[in-house]
Amino acid sequence: MYSKIIAEIKGLDKEVMELTSKRLDSLIKPIGSLGRLEELAIQISGITGKVKNKINKKCTVVMSADNGICESGVSACPQAITLMQTLNFTKGIAGINVLSKHGNSDVRIVDIGINGETMHPQIINRKIRKGTSNMLKGSAMTTEEAVRAIEVGIEIVNALAKEGYELGTGEMGIGNTSTSSAILMALTGCSAETAVGKGAGLTDEDYENKKRIIKTCIEINNINTEDALDVLSKVGGFDIAGLVGCYLGAAYNRLPIVIDGFISAAAALVAYKLNPTTREYMIPSHESAEPGYRLLMKELGLEPIFKLNMRLGEGTGCPLAFNVIDAALAVVNNMATFEEAALEGDFLVDIR
Amino acid sequence: MYSKIIAEIKGLDKEVMELTSKRLDSLIKPIGSLGRLEELAIQISGITGKVKNKINKKCTVVMSADNGICESGVSACPQAITLMQTLNFTKGIAGINVLSKHGNSDVRIVDIGINGETMHPQIINRKIRKGTSNMLKGSAMTTEEAVRAIEVGIEIVNALAKEGYELGTGEMGIGNTSTSSAILMALTGCSAETAVGKGAGLTDEDYENKKRIIKTCIEINNINTEDALDVLSKVGGFDIAGLVGCYLGAAYNRLPIVIDGFISAAAALVAYKLNPTTREYMIPSHESAEPGYRLLMKELGLEPIFKLNMRLGEGTGCPLAFNVIDAALAVVNNMATFEEAALEGDFLVDIR
Repeated sequence: MYSKIIAEIKGLDKEVMELTSKRLDSLIKPIGSLGRLEELAIQISGITGKVKNKINKKCTVVMSADNGICESGVSACPQAITLMQTLNFTKGIAGINVLSKHGNSDVRIVDIGINGETMHPQIINRKIRKGTSNMLKGSAMTTEEAVRAIEVGIEIVNALAKEGYELGTGEMGIGNTSTSSAILMALTGCSAETAVGKGAGLTDEDYENKKRIIKTCIEINNINTEDALDVLSKVGGFDIAGLVGCYLGAAYNRLPIVIDGFISAAAALVAYKLNPTTREYMIPSHESAEPGYRLLMKELGLEPIFKLNMRLGEGTGCPLAFNVIDAALAVVNNMATFEEAALEGDFLVDIR
Repeated sequence: MYSKIIAEIKGLDKEVMELTSKRLDSLIKPIGSLGRLEELAIQISGITGKVKNKINKKCTVVMSADNGICESGVSACPQAITLMQTLNFTKGIAGINVLSKHGNSDVRIVDIGINGETMHPQIINRKIRKGTSNMLKGSAMTTEEAVRAIEVGIEIVNALAKEGYELGTGEMGIGNTSTSSAILMALTGCSAETAVGKGAGLTDEDYENKKRIIKTCIEINNINTEDALDVLSKVGGFDIAGLVGCYLGAAYNRLPIVIDGFISAAAALVAYKLNPTTREYMIPSHESAEPGYRLLMKELGLEPIFKLNMRLGEGTGCPLAFNVIDAALAVVNNMATFEEAALEGDFLVDIR
């Protein structure tokens, strides 16, 4: 299924994008003066195949999983937080819940590899294993597990696609800034200084240690850096693999998908390496405070919408981006053209 | 009235800001991980004097006026556009209307100096004069006119304050990127290359001409650059003066006020020079595509929320920013503290 999905992804509808672009140029404003809003509206029309769009349903998919690397001390937080915070998501009290409610959007929580039991009606149980293996001692997961985790993401998106959702990507997994940095270093060859940040709050000493550990993980795992699946399975995590599947599934199902922060962007880069066309469906949200984020965007050729200095994860940037996308669609749908404005009143002066 | 308002502006409530900051640190997330959202929530609480806030009413005030400098050919657009587009605002079909409706916010349209008649129930007629004088030949307005235009802004905000509005600033006035650039150059001593952009779409030749003209305006007007009111009256516009009044009025009435793009930011800098405390009430929206915007923000010590490459004006960035501010308030109001999360379930692990 994984290979079939990757093979069948198609690009955007360029003809409709051209029509939307023409409509935007006919609206009562200087050409291009709504900048990124116009680009977003054109992108969405290329995704849906329609000039005018309205997206009623939005959902951030949160992939929760644990990372074996945590036993080597890369995080300021104990591993148990992954389970605890994932359960908090079911109570509607965490950042992603509050921002999603504010943005009138939904949250789907997936246990794709938490080290613990999460029997809860609101948590989709697609656990691959109780956390990855420690990538400092060998591959984090097998290739087969990586593919299965990707397929979890695809299947979740396939189900949401039937309901017509716009998607967002979120994650919860102590240690996942380390796996994201490792993926970034393996796929781009950049230094640990560029790729590694202080995560949720490391001391300077622990930060030096984190960089050393991630460098070693890459050295000992004999990675084929030309093969994104090999990178993902050796130094990735189940949460990231699940998100890779979400990006593939979004492109396959022709749905827009918002990238949250650093970890979501690392998953986006893996998806892009598996099939570059996936990028056409991606919309970055905010510029994460993690230092590797800028390079990930550069590799993807994307620019974030917000500069909010956020570094929470969970998908918290997605509901904020959904609102800007809706605003962009409202411009196409509801602003008048010069011709319409002339019919409305006594004036027709072309300000283009 | 003008002097009294400036004298009576008070700063934010630091004690309540401290309480809000403490509450944010107690929420189930790593300390500071919601970045700018946390700063916005703290700022709003300092403005209102309450830790938890909900803003129901938002309004973008659009100041429309004409600029005498247009006769010297600084704009790609004919002056009649100011009147035409202001009338379009009453029809609900322009960018600011569509984005305001999307963001559930209002628009107040003020004719503070349009070169034409605007008898319309939705346009507040506070016309100082039918456009400023050509600042290439002398002062754009008298000091007395500048004060009157500022007082128009103050009075509009005073009226809105009774209804409890959060404010945004917008403008319509062909030629007002020239006045904004002139203000920026006069107040900071920066070069025309730094301060002047291509506005709504000038050719390279016209752009060189625009820079030359603005430089000359500053040279011939014998400006006291230490006196923001002198700068405003000699090389400003009625729209900008009205917005200066909005910032003063917002600070006086303790209301948050969003800065839209380049022109709104130039007005913000004048208000800041008249009373630096006004800055504490300002919230920038998007990084305008006009080149002088970055320097204005640097002078104000502010950072925009969005990077959208917009350059429409009208206040179009404000409704987008209102949504982010609401999101920030929702975080304070609705996220659980570690203690509350523990009461809700079986888990208490402190992830700070």
